[in-house]
Amino acid sequence: MSVLVVLLLSLAVDAQMYGSLQSPNFPDPYPRETVLRWNVSVPDGFQIKLYFSHFDLEPSYLCEYDYVKVEAEGEVLALFCGREETDTEAVPAQQIITSPRNSLSLLFSSDFSNEERYSGFMAHYSAVDVDECSEPPDEDLLCDHFCHNYIGGYYCSCRHGYLLHSDNRTCRVECSDGVFMERSGVLSSVDFPSPYPKSSECWYRIEVDPGFRLLLQFDPRFDVEDHPDVSCPYDHVRITAGSRQFGPFCGDRPPGEIQTDSNVVSVFFHSDNSGENRGWRLTYTSTGSKCLAPDTPPNALLTPVQSEYSFKDHILFTCSPGYTLLKDGESLDHYQMDCQSDGSWSSSPPRCQKTDSGRRRSSLSSLLTNHSPD
Amino acid sequence: MSVLVVLLLSLAVDAQMYGSLQSPNFPDPYPRETVLRWNVSVPDGFQIKLYFSHFDLEPSYLCEYDYVKVEAEGEVLALFCGREETDTEAVPAQQIITSPRNSLSLLFSSDFSNEERYSGFMAHYSAVDVDECSEPPDEDLLCDHFCHNYIGGYYCSCRHGYLLHSDNRTCRVECSDGVFMERSGVLSSVDFPSPYPKSSECWYRIEVDPGFRLLLQFDPRFDVEDHPDVSCPYDHVRITAGSRQFGPFCGDRPPGEIQTDSNVVSVFFHSDNSGENRGWRLTYTSTGSKCLAPDTPPNALLTPVQSEYSFKDHILFTCSPGYTLLKDGESLDHYQMDCQSDGSWSSSPPRCQKTDSGRRRSSLSSLLTNHSPD
Repeated sequence: MSVLVVLLLSLAVDAQMYGSLQSPNFPDPYPRETVLRWNVSVPDGFQIKLYFSHFDLEPSYLCEYDYVKVEAEGEVLALFCGREETDTEAVPAQQIITSPRNSLSLLFSSDFSNEERYSGFMAHYSAVDVDECSEPPDEDLLCDHFCHNYIGGYYCSCRHGYLLHSDNRTCRVECSDGVFMERSGVLSSVDFPSPYPKSSECWYRIEVDPGFRLLLQFDPRFDVEDHPDVSCPYDHVRITAGSRQFGPFCGDRPPGEIQTDSNVVSVFFHSDNSGENRGWRLTYTSTGSKCLAPDTPPNALLTPVQSEYSFKDHILFTCSPGYTLLKDGESLDHYQMDCQSDGSWSSSPPRCQKTDSGRRRSSLSSLLTNHSPD
Repeated sequence: MSVLVVLLLSLAVDAQMYGSLQSPNFPDPYPRETVLRWNVSVPDGFQIKLYFSHFDLEPSYLCEYDYVKVEAEGEVLALFCGREETDTEAVPAQQIITSPRNSLSLLFSSDFSNEERYSGFMAHYSAVDVDECSEPPDEDLLCDHFCHNYIGGYYCSCRHGYLLHSDNRTCRVECSDGVFMERSGVLSSVDFPSPYPKSSECWYRIEVDPGFRLLLQFDPRFDVEDHPDVSCPYDHVRITAGSRQFGPFCGDRPPGEIQTDSNVVSVFFHSDNSGENRGWRLTYTSTGSKCLAPDTPPNALLTPVQSEYSFKDHILFTCSPGYTLLKDGESLDHYQMDCQSDGSWSSSPPRCQKTDSGRRRSSLSSLLTNHSPD
């Protein structure tokens, strides 16, 4: 009883939401030597559910004679034969066959002889929605925050405060409007030390007065998605300070301390659409240029007395009693010198000259001396 | 803090398969004194599933101040207010609201003042297929045999041997091709004593030779859908015999025995599209017309001897030895008389006359007598 194929028909069933298939001549007995294939498809985003409401085929060992075969993606999903009422081994009964994707094919084959007349089969199929949110077909297609299934598809949305990226999948943040103008402060990736948002471009600008030099100190907790071979292709921190560039930084080794030698620094952080890394944090401080402590002129008093001075520090000079402060040929009560952004003082120190009582001048110190109660 | 309605907007959301709704200005805080209603509908055959991915409204006792109300078919399905992160009493959280049918409305209302700024809500809805086969909306809409759900609808089919009625719901049978020509037999509703098929018109014809009279005897098990007041408006059995009508019959009292006085009888059975009644069965027999037993002429033999004879019975006359059978002036070996459909004999009996030995005739009886071994 080998299968002699004398009739081979192939039926393409258009993408519909449901339908039924029946053996030739149903409900009358099917003809012998017949092969018939139905290709069933439903729209994308659906699977196919198939089951039988009637089944009556010639029984045979391993369904060698007459049979119904259900296939999809090159795999056999089911092979049926026999009589529903008497055989229970290879008949579909209440079995529901679900296709892995949105198509399947059903093959009916009858051989050249039948001992009895068999009425064939009646099958029903319908599209079944795929819940992409509960059964992701591929992890990369998952929603970053929220997944919303609907019949025939799904869409993503983001938690409050996040924006859906144009990839319709990841949730980015708006993070480029921060300008830090305090002399010191802390910057970090969003949500640090929780994983930072994906698909985001963050610019942070630190801007202190000219003359200050910004020092960046990264937190030891540093975790930015990296690659074993390529330098920071996914996520990275880049720092621009004047004409100097630092980075890109990524991986789990913190960049440590960075002396930028600039009062304006941009920190740029890029994240791609995947990864669950915890990000970074940095503390910045600004230090002015150093001025060397000036030599104290003889008989002069100097406040404050420090071992070194920074940009914008100043020193006030006065002279001991009985001495007159002279600067650039002028007699002054006191004199101030400023530490400049380039590390130099704004002028040279004054000098103190013993007061010539015959050459009285209306200097502040002499006036004070003259009006003293003693 | 009574609700002052200064802005009343109503938005009709077209019948789509999914969508989202958000409070005015979302993700920024919503304005005060705003009332907004969304009317959401999906196609027939679907329900609506609604849930919130963000919820942050002014909390109040019984949600008197700001609130979101979900309504359908004049019923309040849900009333929400409060802050997701701190209040857990009246916020939607993970709750999923399902509309009873294919539409719902969502009402947002904010009052004239808020102590803080609240960011509002983000809601998502999608169409959900109604499985009519597992949750019939109305028993009368059920499928008679098999129910097949698909996305957006369902259809019915029938067991092998049945046909789907044009109501697309009930399963009828082809039952009008039976002609019964045997002298006796049994007729019944299809599947008796299991419930008979719905929506069916069955004609059964019994046809025996003219001269026979058909007698119908109903089985005591009789169960045909009836009505307490109207005579058999749903299902019924009617019998036509020549010009005579019997029935309609229905209910649970069997019609008993019906002498039709006809050799041709039609049994008509009508069933409507509902009911689970067990039907009827009848046994028919046919009796011919009766002919009176004729008087036996002297010296005649008559076979068979019966007290009465029926249509198509016949009687064979012979004469005793030494007598000759005479009919219509002819001398015969034997003579046959037939009982006719009208109850009369086909002719009158012959007579037997003592044989005149001089007038020997080659009659069968005399031949047999002559060749006897004695």
